[in-house]
Amino acid sequence: MKDTLWLDDAKSALVIIDQTLLPNEEVFRSLTTTDQIAYAIKRLAVRGAPAIGVAAACGAYLAAKNALDSRDFYGQVREELAILAASRPTARNLFWALERMDAVLKAHPVPADAVAAMKAEAESIIAEDIESCTAIGEYGAPFFRDSMHVLTHCNAGRLAAVRYGTALAPIYRAAEKGVKLKVYADETRPLLQGARLTAYELCSAGIDCTLLCDNMAAGLMAKGEIDAVIVGSDRVAANGDAANKTGTLSVAVAAKHFGIPFYVAVPFSTIDPSCATGHDITIEQRSPREVTSMWYAKPMAPENVKVYNPAFDVTPAELITAMITDKGVFKPPFRF
Amino acid sequence: MKDTLWLDDAKSALVIIDQTLLPNEEVFRSLTTTDQIAYAIKRLAVRGAPAIGVAAACGAYLAAKNALDSRDFYGQVREELAILAASRPTARNLFWALERMDAVLKAHPVPADAVAAMKAEAESIIAEDIESCTAIGEYGAPFFRDSMHVLTHCNAGRLAAVRYGTALAPIYRAAEKGVKLKVYADETRPLLQGARLTAYELCSAGIDCTLLCDNMAAGLMAKGEIDAVIVGSDRVAANGDAANKTGTLSVAVAAKHFGIPFYVAVPFSTIDPSCATGHDITIEQRSPREVTSMWYAKPMAPENVKVYNPAFDVTPAELITAMITDKGVFKPPFRF
Repeated sequence: MKDTLWLDDAKSALVIIDQTLLPNEEVFRSLTTTDQIAYAIKRLAVRGAPAIGVAAACGAYLAAKNALDSRDFYGQVREELAILAASRPTARNLFWALERMDAVLKAHPVPADAVAAMKAEAESIIAEDIESCTAIGEYGAPFFRDSMHVLTHCNAGRLAAVRYGTALAPIYRAAEKGVKLKVYADETRPLLQGARLTAYELCSAGIDCTLLCDNMAAGLMAKGEIDAVIVGSDRVAANGDAANKTGTLSVAVAAKHFGIPFYVAVPFSTIDPSCATGHDITIEQRSPREVTSMWYAKPMAPENVKVYNPAFDVTPAELITAMITDKGVFKPPFRF
Repeated sequence: MKDTLWLDDAKSALVIIDQTLLPNEEVFRSLTTTDQIAYAIKRLAVRGAPAIGVAAACGAYLAAKNALDSRDFYGQVREELAILAASRPTARNLFWALERMDAVLKAHPVPADAVAAMKAEAESIIAEDIESCTAIGEYGAPFFRDSMHVLTHCNAGRLAAVRYGTALAPIYRAAEKGVKLKVYADETRPLLQGARLTAYELCSAGIDCTLLCDNMAAGLMAKGEIDAVIVGSDRVAANGDAANKTGTLSVAVAAKHFGIPFYVAVPFSTIDPSCATGHDITIEQRSPREVTSMWYAKPMAPENVKVYNPAFDVTPAELITAMITDKGVFKPPFRF
């Protein structure tokens, strides 16, 4: 199976699988400009906090490479970093990757050196993503025993990262060890990342997967059908509050009510010490059309209805049983 | 505004607005046979517990009227009652209406008398539906004060009944009294009754309505944006457990977690003394296609993914703040 995204340096391109077309078409796109990469992030052709970080790092490198002949190399590269930073507001990894690339840029006063160092840094970020997802898989796998039923929300699988994913990494690792799990995937309205991406990648990997509408999760829990919940996060505050795809809070509240463990799996880079609590996390508001018009189809709501469409919500630390990271497992009260 | 459904006796037809086409088209259909009516119920062209009861009552009368020349009048009418009863399993009102029609049939040994009495009974059921929804509106309106934000799930409005609806009746009645409310409507996957029907009828009635995906309700509650929740129910058990559109339980659990009152509004006929608790309520399982293929569009999930698609869930009585009926307001522990 191909990686979700990679750097094709010979073609000066970031190659991504276009996730908006899944599960119906597997189309890989070569993106060569900052505008193309920022737009791919904005329209969710590449999504998932770790994958966004990698895309931004590659974008920053390509921007520098393309600017080598520019009169104002440093000015131009910084402008392009700002374009990448403005693509989406919530995922910590985007800013974390861009800060790393910017630090490398600053550290090299000769443009050609900066470009070479930024290439190495982007490659490091890719390698670290693969390593950290592998580590999350190792640390998380022991939480999943044979015949458990596991619920996940949105997609924090291989499509959200370069290769293994975060929330699904422990599931893949457990499966490699021969543990048989039944995974329930919330479809994840409005953009259906669970139906289109999680169900797609789990089915492709031969893992038993059942799709449900988000609002059915509590009913499954009430019937004793769910043993554990695992999700990713786009940004974790210093106190453990975790922003993740809209609807995660609903799952966490239901898990608490029914006494089911609720795990958040993230690379350590997703933890943002500059956010004291979830209140400090900027939540992206997206277009009403995502809710009212779906998949090239007829409108499903009156033309002028108001729409509430936050892309994320914040699950308070008190609802999180454990945080599984590439640096080990943390339990509340969270001290990272 | 026209009623949602009515008996057109001159044409020997039940007329319904086809709710599968809303909000894009307002198409009224004349249904003259039991098969047509049962199929309209099954495919949700007419839906909502009270409206289903009325449709079944009219269907039973029309079946009797059409069977007048039959050699085996009583046998044929009973067969057609069975077809109506098999259309959907969960809504109490369907069976309640058919039991009433069957009792009238049994009480009249002369076919022509039976037909006349069944017509009167169907008309009574229609009139009682309008009366009971009006009473629910009166009893429920005092729960809603100026500038409150109210969340509802699915559609228990005028489209779910002949004229006023159940859960929305107190909102309409409050609005008539000049109370300004802001209503949040869960879109209600998979069939989007909230987006297509509740948003449509509230917007049409000039009531401030904002649409959201079901999974966003907990996030709104966490922000203090919701003051009360009101929903309908398809069948209430003797202990107050209430089956309603899938996703209702999730809203009830979140309301409990955030300390928000959760009201269920039903005609008394929805309460089923033969069900001791929610465990005794049959939950309809519907087609996976409702989840995987939406609105004439491309598939949004892998072809062969398994799907969990219950049409309803059960909210336990302990999560219900009050039950608003046409016979007054009940509080837990529920004794009807």
